Amino acid sequence: AMKELNYIPNELARNLLSKKSGIVAIIIPKISHPFFAEVVLYAEAELMKKGYKTMICSTYSEQNYEKEYINMLNRHIVDGIIAGSHMLDFEEYQGVQGPIVALDRFLGENIPVVSTNHKIGGKLAAEELVRNQGARVVDSPSHERHYEFERYMKKRGVTVYSHEMDWNDFDYGQYDVMADMLMDKYPDIDGIFAVDMVAIACIRQLLKRKKKVPRDVKVVAYDGTYVAKVGVMNLTVVQQPIEELAKRAVNILLNMIQGKKYHNKKVFYEPTLLLGDTTDDKE
Amino acid sequence: AMKELNYIPNELARNLLSKKSGIVAIIIPKISHPFFAEVVLYAEAELMKKGYKTMICSTYSEQNYEKEYINMLNRHIVDGIIAGSHMLDFEEYQGVQGPIVALDRFLGENIPVVSTNHKIGGKLAAEELVRNQGARVVDSPSHERHYEFERYMKKRGVTVYSHEMDWNDFDYGQYDVMADMLMDKYPDIDGIFAVDMVAIACIRQLLKRKKKVPRDVKVVAYDGTYVAKVGVMNLTVVQQPIEELAKRAVNILLNMIQGKKYHNKKVFYEPTLLLGDTTDDKE
Repeated sequence: AMKELNYIPNELARNLLSKKSGIVAIIIPKISHPFFAEVVLYAEAELMKKGYKTMICSTYSEQNYEKEYINMLNRHIVDGIIAGSHMLDFEEYQGVQGPIVALDRFLGENIPVVSTNHKIGGKLAAEELVRNQGARVVDSPSHERHYEFERYMKKRGVTVYSHEMDWNDFDYGQYDVMADMLMDKYPDIDGIFAVDMVAIACIRQLLKRKKKVPRDVKVVAYDGTYVAKVGVMNLTVVQQPIEELAKRAVNILLNMIQGKKYHNKKVFYEPTLLLGDTTDDKE
Repeated sequence: AMKELNYIPNELARNLLSKKSGIVAIIIPKISHPFFAEVVLYAEAELMKKGYKTMICSTYSEQNYEKEYINMLNRHIVDGIIAGSHMLDFEEYQGVQGPIVALDRFLGENIPVVSTNHKIGGKLAAEELVRNQGARVVDSPSHERHYEFERYMKKRGVTVYSHEMDWNDFDYGQYDVMADMLMDKYPDIDGIFAVDMVAIACIRQLLKRKKKVPRDVKVVAYDGTYVAKVGVMNLTVVQQPIEELAKRAVNILLNMIQGKKYHNKKVFYEPTLLLGDTTDDKE
């Protein structure tokens, strides 16, 4: 058969025999979101080093795209998937046989998870705002970090106003609208804890109200993507170890592509606090 | 032959016969750079709509990766390439037969180019700084926009200090170092014209020097990516029509994949000036 097909491009024929495509897909909500852009940057570099190509799939507009990529795994078009998106239901992943690694999300016992330890992240943020003597703070809850943040704060008599966000909403204009509303609703706050982009939107709204950061309001951001570091203000951040997360996800996935099985595999990385210009200097 | 191969995954077999993979590669310097992140965002959405998958290749660390992708085109692993990177020499593209569309860069008569009209972009920035009565301005030259900017300014007696940048340097820390040096070297400037990330780094350094924007120094940024719009300050920008550029590049490429040939094809889109908080309000 192969002889008769010898007009065929080498690589396709080789894939055909090995049932390997040499391609890994990364599913993310939106490639232009700084967190996911950095995840893809580091994952692609690691995949390239190991001889794999990177396909991307932004799901922000259509959750069917995620399903399509899972199908591609079943059809051997991609050898594995790194799932960083939160759109598709848990159930959709249950029938999948091929290698998948999840970022920051439990998708089933046979799908390893790589994540930041958000409990520590929430504690780091809370400690920093308490050190800055915040008595009333706004927090946008997500994951473990929120529960730990709130628990720590309550023990110290700090009032926490929580504002739920739609985490699939990556429309930056919406951040501004939300920040505007929050700063109107809670004019007396001393501190803010939110992901990078939301923290920046809040600072913008504070400045419009002639409030100064950190003099009047302290801000601790979560994620520590480049937008928190190269903007007009350098934010104090709880830094997720994005490069480590991405590399580890890739390497676990490549092991699975080589046949290794994992059961209940969960890898956690510790975040760190990086002081910027939005909280007070250490004494 | 196909009968004997019927254990083969459908899709690979189909690609084998059609010599099409359904995959387009986008080559960019760095996926986490906001301009290229937006290019990929819009290109991927358009490709997905037309039934194609998107592969990405960030070349910032290794220019050999670009060569590898050109090889993949020759080997039919990808059906076409959108080339947004500036690392590989012009000559490397001359032997390539498959469909390539270039973003903002001439790669040969048979490779269509999609670009912003940077001459108009330079003029828009110059007009805005002249309206703001800048007498001494700093500019980081690139493309046509610089020549037009300088020409317009000289005619009006404005002194332009040009600072050459290495356009393959996407290390954000470097922007800060450069901005620090520039603000020391030209303490008496009235205006700055630079790409988004550099403009932001300059504002940061100005604020550190207790200068106010726009009161003391006016800033016009080039590109208009989201970092210019969602930061602590909303920049006045010359907006590149990034979505249009990306969509058009995709559609020209898909035509080429269908067999259409282009000769000396160049498509230019007009940029627009969007007023933000870094120049004076219109009177």
